[in-house]
Amino acid sequence: MHIAYIQFAPALADLEATLERLRPFLEKCANADLIVLPELCNSGYNFSSRKQAAAAAEPYRRSRFIDVLVEHCRQRDCRVVSGFNERDGDTLFNAAVLIGPDGPLGRYRKLHLFKDEKDIFAPGDLGLPVFDVGMAKIGMLVCFDWIFPETWRVLTLRGAEIICHAANLVLPGMAQRAVPVQAMMNRVFVVTANRVGAEGRLTFTGASLIVDPLGEVLAAAPQEGPHAAVVEINPLRARDKMVTPRNHLISDRRPAEYAALVKSPE
Amino acid sequence: MHIAYIQFAPALADLEATLERLRPFLEKCANADLIVLPELCNSGYNFSSRKQAAAAAEPYRRSRFIDVLVEHCRQRDCRVVSGFNERDGDTLFNAAVLIGPDGPLGRYRKLHLFKDEKDIFAPGDLGLPVFDVGMAKIGMLVCFDWIFPETWRVLTLRGAEIICHAANLVLPGMAQRAVPVQAMMNRVFVVTANRVGAEGRLTFTGASLIVDPLGEVLAAAPQEGPHAAVVEINPLRARDKMVTPRNHLISDRRPAEYAALVKSPE
Repeated sequence: MHIAYIQFAPALADLEATLERLRPFLEKCANADLIVLPELCNSGYNFSSRKQAAAAAEPYRRSRFIDVLVEHCRQRDCRVVSGFNERDGDTLFNAAVLIGPDGPLGRYRKLHLFKDEKDIFAPGDLGLPVFDVGMAKIGMLVCFDWIFPETWRVLTLRGAEIICHAANLVLPGMAQRAVPVQAMMNRVFVVTANRVGAEGRLTFTGASLIVDPLGEVLAAAPQEGPHAAVVEINPLRARDKMVTPRNHLISDRRPAEYAALVKSPE
Repeated sequence: MHIAYIQFAPALADLEATLERLRPFLEKCANADLIVLPELCNSGYNFSSRKQAAAAAEPYRRSRFIDVLVEHCRQRDCRVVSGFNERDGDTLFNAAVLIGPDGPLGRYRKLHLFKDEKDIFAPGDLGLPVFDVGMAKIGMLVCFDWIFPETWRVLTLRGAEIICHAANLVLPGMAQRAVPVQAMMNRVFVVTANRVGAEGRLTFTGASLIVDPLGEVLAAAPQEGPHAAVVEINPLRARDKMVTPRNHLISDRRPAEYAALVKSPE
């Protein structure tokens, strides 16, 4: 199985310009079975207003962006995970979508909103789903979700073998340092597809990553400029949770001792 | 506040030899308010039999090892966290003890046993307690506990500002890579006191660490040989959980979405 990230700069509120930029990189990843794209890939990130964000958002079931990616999946027999500015009625979600040759296969809505996203998007309401696409079981995270170790762990407990992390990271180096450790502590593959470029005062930090279940970095992008990488993996490696012949990463857990993790704050 | 680790090689089943080795390093840390020592510091690690482990174990309330450390704490007005081979009736625990000038202040029993420890020790039954010693709130972990992200998080949620990690690490580089990320993701100080030397076929990996709440390494020991480091910190920094002006590491959590973390495996 071949997995890939595409690191590039989506155009703010200009879907056609974004698709123009994206196409050559999709072609570069022609042999990929799974491609991960950055957060809010259909819209850009740093909106001047909620109105601009809403105008650039698309419904999950009626999206030109998703249509283009479905067509790519059909031609190349692949799957794409992408960040997606989703409009659902009057509500916007900072979502990620899983797309296949026959249409969208599932979505995730960012649980942990970053800074002023809180003025634009509603917090995610679809939990942390895992989707079986045949070749592998896939979980999705969006950007700032990374700083909550619970997210990686819940996806792992639900069977995720590849965690696709669509990002528009702005805090330099933090997530890129944490992601390989999350892969190692959960024994999963991770693809972090980060964007580059600047929008207003925000500069995005690139350095997209593909990491294996031992925390080894299989591919890494520069901090600036567009970049794509395709890596061959065996997703079954993520099913091996034996740290030693007598230590299983999941069955050695002590869930009864972790009750504090699910208590609401007082 | 000054915090320290002492990295050295406890002597297997020879408490007096261990104390002999330890004393000059305790003196080197004379200005420390908190000193962290390795796992099973009163007994060594790689026992030839459970019987040998039991003979080297001590009760929490009647321990020559703890007495010596209480005396040090009294002289230097400090606290010590140490790994401790604890005998409770017929049961052995791979414990950590928090020691002050007036005696032991609390203990923790390793929740996640590594490899053949499962033949010797009972799994921890005291949860993940946090102790307020005035200058800071202290949580304890023992060695392999590190690979379970739940442990760091539960201690953080209970208010730990400094997590004292007593270790006899043998998997090279894994914990040392993860610990700074755990500090960063939980915004706590961490002191990993690892041992060095070899016992039978096991070689311990040294590289003890002190890390701040941003994941910066404040002190690091070599992989081989004894070493002590004392670092001045402001423990209040661990109370600042604001990642951005609008993002609080704890109150931004979505505990209702984390239910899978506390479910028993099927």
